[in-house]
Amino acid sequence: MITGKITSLHVTDVRFPTSLEQHGSDAMHTDPDYSAAYVVIETDVTDGLKGHGLTFTLGKGTEIVVCAVKALSGHVVGKSLEEIVNDFRHFYRQLTSDSQLRWIGPEKGAVQLAAAAVLNAVWDLWAKKEKKPLWKLLVDMNPQQLVSCIDFRYITDALTEEEALEILQNGKQGQTVREVQMLKSGYPAYTTSCAWLGYPDEQLKKLCSDALKEGWTRFKVKVGADLKDDNRRCELIRGMIGSDNLMMLDANQRWDVNEAITWVKELAKFKPIWIEEPTSPDDILGHATISKAIAPLNIGVATGEQCHNRVMFKQFLQARALQFLQIDSCRLGSVNENLSVLLMAKKFNIPVCPHAGGVGLCELVQHLILFDYISVSGSLDNRMCEYVDHLHEHFKYPVVINDAAYMPPKDPGYSTEMTEESVLKYQFPSGEVWQNLLKESTNV
Amino acid sequence: MITGKITSLHVTDVRFPTSLEQHGSDAMHTDPDYSAAYVVIETDVTDGLKGHGLTFTLGKGTEIVVCAVKALSGHVVGKSLEEIVNDFRHFYRQLTSDSQLRWIGPEKGAVQLAAAAVLNAVWDLWAKKEKKPLWKLLVDMNPQQLVSCIDFRYITDALTEEEALEILQNGKQGQTVREVQMLKSGYPAYTTSCAWLGYPDEQLKKLCSDALKEGWTRFKVKVGADLKDDNRRCELIRGMIGSDNLMMLDANQRWDVNEAITWVKELAKFKPIWIEEPTSPDDILGHATISKAIAPLNIGVATGEQCHNRVMFKQFLQARALQFLQIDSCRLGSVNENLSVLLMAKKFNIPVCPHAGGVGLCELVQHLILFDYISVSGSLDNRMCEYVDHLHEHFKYPVVINDAAYMPPKDPGYSTEMTEESVLKYQFPSGEVWQNLLKESTNV
Repeated sequence: MITGKITSLHVTDVRFPTSLEQHGSDAMHTDPDYSAAYVVIETDVTDGLKGHGLTFTLGKGTEIVVCAVKALSGHVVGKSLEEIVNDFRHFYRQLTSDSQLRWIGPEKGAVQLAAAAVLNAVWDLWAKKEKKPLWKLLVDMNPQQLVSCIDFRYITDALTEEEALEILQNGKQGQTVREVQMLKSGYPAYTTSCAWLGYPDEQLKKLCSDALKEGWTRFKVKVGADLKDDNRRCELIRGMIGSDNLMMLDANQRWDVNEAITWVKELAKFKPIWIEEPTSPDDILGHATISKAIAPLNIGVATGEQCHNRVMFKQFLQARALQFLQIDSCRLGSVNENLSVLLMAKKFNIPVCPHAGGVGLCELVQHLILFDYISVSGSLDNRMCEYVDHLHEHFKYPVVINDAAYMPPKDPGYSTEMTEESVLKYQFPSGEVWQNLLKESTNV
Repeated sequence: MITGKITSLHVTDVRFPTSLEQHGSDAMHTDPDYSAAYVVIETDVTDGLKGHGLTFTLGKGTEIVVCAVKALSGHVVGKSLEEIVNDFRHFYRQLTSDSQLRWIGPEKGAVQLAAAAVLNAVWDLWAKKEKKPLWKLLVDMNPQQLVSCIDFRYITDALTEEEALEILQNGKQGQTVREVQMLKSGYPAYTTSCAWLGYPDEQLKKLCSDALKEGWTRFKVKVGADLKDDNRRCELIRGMIGSDNLMMLDANQRWDVNEAITWVKELAKFKPIWIEEPTSPDDILGHATISKAIAPLNIGVATGEQCHNRVMFKQFLQARALQFLQIDSCRLGSVNENLSVLLMAKKFNIPVCPHAGGVGLCELVQHLILFDYISVSGSLDNRMCEYVDHLHEHFKYPVVINDAAYMPPKDPGYSTEMTEESVLKYQFPSGEVWQNLLKESTNV
């Protein structure tokens, strides 16, 4: 029995100065300060439980998302948690289709990121109340309950409520075995930590060598800014990891459609299994063209971290425009919208390989992919979850990686809670870290 | 010779309480307060000229766009106008692809609306400096100059720079004749003022009867919330306007794909020429399915007011998902991005019928459609520009409608400047109008 009326929603602009060391740099995001709009909701119940949620950002612009979260708070504060989760679809619609706010989206950009942060906090609170990690809360829900969280608007031509129910009912078969398997061995991961675009070759070598020693077998390389550089870096990494390990390429939207095809053909000799974000994240038909052109090379197209809603994913699937679907826990409208995408991916028989990294994305998305394996896809073929070894120390329940696999979290909630100390120190611009950086830059 | 360094950018949240009288109400936006993020840029030149720009919003959320405008201002203040317009493509890219801010988009939602407001102000200032209305500035530019304003990233598979140049060079033929024609007769318009969804039948009848007397021959009707209501309202309006006048329907994204097809078939008996926004503005493939299904009924699909960038429009054209393309002066990245869409529409032979209404959209978009006719499409077949008789009194250079046609503006600039009095009175929440409404609601 979950209880409590939400009495407050607080949002903070938290930024980590990652650009100082080129962590996270790619062909389009040359100087990211990994950041988050961080939401805390409280209730009038004396159990002391709070809901923590976030959406990931790159520094500048976090204040815009914070502003959007405040605009949404009127839909949250005053409602009881029970009222929300018992008609979650309705609550989801309220947040994402506010009749004035939707003009700023609809269901995209700052307002959608804000909705994700708020909903992530609600799911965290719900899971804490149920004393379960989020993945387990989802695994234990019955198909009807799960489906009642999904807004099917605009996707019924690809997935009806009845089809979703059927997929979830089928997913119940063998669920217990798969849960035990996950608890024992974890969910397979790949690493992006080695080959950010801004890293010099020596750093690449060192990181790659360390990762091999730690048992990593799947490596992602950032490409797209300069073909000569890409050739050199890919050769270096393929040389180090050998032919049995997997390599993935990520262009972070750098190319036009035809340019992408030419460039990927040039890098095909390094045997990557996918090219990620070859062009604009909005270009469904462009991705379909690229998919078709590079299929003979045994390279698939992966995309999704900037795919802003279920309507876009629906079309990527309908157009056969991707071969690896990369959900994001903070870009889509939280668990609710991710559920609809996992179910569509299952229907279209496309493997889900989540986007992670950033701030907290690993912590959150591991819950979704565990649920996907245990209750939806039932398969690990061509599947793996991104991992970046970065900023986990700021979280109260950081991810646990064992032998290149995500070990299922055991603490109640969505692993979204940051340490109070980190939030204070990295709050922008008033936190100690930023005040010091500000002083330094004034002194220069 | 244009001069001046931009020394300041000021942005104001201006809202009109239109929801009080159901103006602008439709199936998805039931209570809009027509609003704008209103930008003023000043230079260090003593000519006293300022650039005014805006983007349209629906009330709540305007503060988010205001916040986004502030985040962009660092790219504007300190630059000379000459430096900007001489390499406008580069400046456009800076605004829309800031490496940290683009995560909040990219090129969509609040940051794209903000970029539109800022760029609209730059174009207004440029046209004022050249002492020309914006449409005339564009008409007088040579093809090379026009093309240099466009960011071709992500659209070269549909339109190359060379093709764009060729279209513009061909457009020069007969340009003078078409300009004279426009100055004499104006650009054909249609009215949306009669049939907002929240209006009672008596009001519909009165407005429709008045519009007929004023010479209107093309009428848009809002539909989509209730089929019985739609039947009654369409019958009423078709009865009043007769069979020779044109009727358009607008569902404002209310339906799923199959629902749209069924509903439109039901309303086909009223002989509308288009159904506007039948489903999600992101659903290119859905619009293509609907287009195909209703083509035998001689009804086309119109969409675009929430189509967030050129990459989306490119796909709508490639997929034959629309038969009438509705550009928006404040959703796309100002004149720059609209130029690319006008040129793609020309290449794909699809008529452009701009979205207008809101606050200032008529004032702005008339310049673009005049340029389209004079220098790009050279045709009025199946073409008309939306008109809503609303809020024009707040603009310093309001539109002039003669015999259901937009008369080309003669004042220098982009017609974006609001009266100082209106900005003061309607500023949210400090303006007099909002302070009074606040007092009233406190007294209730």
